Amino acid sequence: MTEQLDAIASFEQSLAECADKVTVVLDKFIPSAIGPEAQLMRAMRHGALAGGKRLRPFITIEVGRLFDAPEKSLLRAASALECVHAYSLVHDDLPCMDDDDLRRGLPTVHKAFDEATAVLAGDALQALAFEILANTETHGDAGVRCKLIEVLALSSGARGMVGGQMIDMAPSFDDKDALNILARMQRMKTGALISCAAEFGAIIGGANEHEHQALAGFTTDLGLAYQIKDDLLDVQGDEAVLGKAVSKDKDAGKQNFVSLLGEESAISRIEMLADQAKQHLSVFGGRATTLTQTVDFVLDRRH
Amino acid sequence: MTEQLDAIASFEQSLAECADKVTVVLDKFIPSAIGPEAQLMRAMRHGALAGGKRLRPFITIEVGRLFDAPEKSLLRAASALECVHAYSLVHDDLPCMDDDDLRRGLPTVHKAFDEATAVLAGDALQALAFEILANTETHGDAGVRCKLIEVLALSSGARGMVGGQMIDMAPSFDDKDALNILARMQRMKTGALISCAAEFGAIIGGANEHEHQALAGFTTDLGLAYQIKDDLLDVQGDEAVLGKAVSKDKDAGKQNFVSLLGEESAISRIEMLADQAKQHLSVFGGRATTLTQTVDFVLDRRH
Repeated sequence: MTEQLDAIASFEQSLAECADKVTVVLDKFIPSAIGPEAQLMRAMRHGALAGGKRLRPFITIEVGRLFDAPEKSLLRAASALECVHAYSLVHDDLPCMDDDDLRRGLPTVHKAFDEATAVLAGDALQALAFEILANTETHGDAGVRCKLIEVLALSSGARGMVGGQMIDMAPSFDDKDALNILARMQRMKTGALISCAAEFGAIIGGANEHEHQALAGFTTDLGLAYQIKDDLLDVQGDEAVLGKAVSKDKDAGKQNFVSLLGEESAISRIEMLADQAKQHLSVFGGRATTLTQTVDFVLDRRH
Repeated sequence: MTEQLDAIASFEQSLAECADKVTVVLDKFIPSAIGPEAQLMRAMRHGALAGGKRLRPFITIEVGRLFDAPEKSLLRAASALECVHAYSLVHDDLPCMDDDDLRRGLPTVHKAFDEATAVLAGDALQALAFEILANTETHGDAGVRCKLIEVLALSSGARGMVGGQMIDMAPSFDDKDALNILARMQRMKTGALISCAAEFGAIIGGANEHEHQALAGFTTDLGLAYQIKDDLLDVQGDEAVLGKAVSKDKDAGKQNFVSLLGEESAISRIEMLADQAKQHLSVFGGRATTLTQTVDFVLDRRH
């Protein structure tokens, strides 16, 4: 029992350390808030530096560690990925999208500033992600940098994250296809970037085809479990703990995994996916302990 | 006289051919409009394929020709740049930004679709730009591809185009600094991407330091002349010919080069900049004839 608590404390410390390192990289790359455009930089900082679990960067770094990949490259790539995640939240929160006032317990960017600034801060954070990846200090091999850029562009673009968000904006789904469309939406909207996180670590680490496949399986299951858990928290969660509004899907008349599957079935689906995700890691043996713990962390979280 | 008319006709034909080729590349790269996210692709097409002079791509291709650079690489890079230009127009037209209903004689993306779709289409077009540049077929040398990506990210990000747009959103400038701030805004908002266009051709063409400098001087002068001309058209232009609203700055109580300098002084400034821009091209001798014509085209245009 004590051993288990120690393991959790140690895991949470690793996660917090990773989050801090990502914040340092992003803080360094976001230009200083000077000149008549200073508000843009302040908004970028608000959107990218204020909290967040930094789960995607953590996955990149832990996957990279499986291959003893250089930490500086992993951290730079992970920070670029987090820029894209941050920009997507800034844009998703806009009045014309999910219209959220609160994010991580703070006013959303368009609330703290204004809508135009939020659109521009999101745009600039996306450009910053590619600037970081293209920088020669991120990795000595330009071929590796280009591969990272291509994977991020595909994962976040029309066939990835942004495409998923477009589906999420659709008024409602056909009843008979609802679960299929919801699954497609999840794979694109949240799954693609989680898969990209592991792929980043695998590319920098020089994984072989078999290892790429195992990691792809791991993130597919983890990503789906993560989303179902998110939907459960939307139903069961506490706004003060979550730092954002709850019952959003229900209030918006939107279907989600819990409304379609029911709570009980959703919970057992999460458990099955968690087991599968861990199975995929078995090829890495004991070296994947932290990634295995990541699965439990994601599914036991209360926010 | 006939010779001059022939030269203009030939120039305009080159420009139109370049525009068509860029449209073909973009049409190929924007995913098909299928699946529940199909509206996103339709909006991307509306924003990126419907008209436009394609002046930036033309500059990339003509600069590249100075160095006998491979056309496929130039065209891909030019199309990526045009994606960024197109996304910026889609976002600039949003109600929370310039709030425009008309662009190139057609409804703007948020008018033809809705605001959420316009935000997402812009985001996806930005990702597409970097996807195109990272693609191995764009250039065989990954170092060249990374350099293009870095230049585009810097030109379009917080210290470039988006930063310039942030300045443009500021309520008004201090009177004594107005011309300085306006010049900074122009260099960032429109100048950076025009400079990027020439830089793309120079990078792919393997220009030396001296040539890079000459081209940077050329685009700095051309970009500023272009903006002053734009401000003149906003005052003098015809909405039907322009395909967009006129007197926008005046109606919005915004300063521009014409309001600050006066029409006469603005016109002589344009002429001076045009001469300077052409001077910078002298290092390339007769090979730069088309780029020289570009200066005249930009400054004689009525839209």
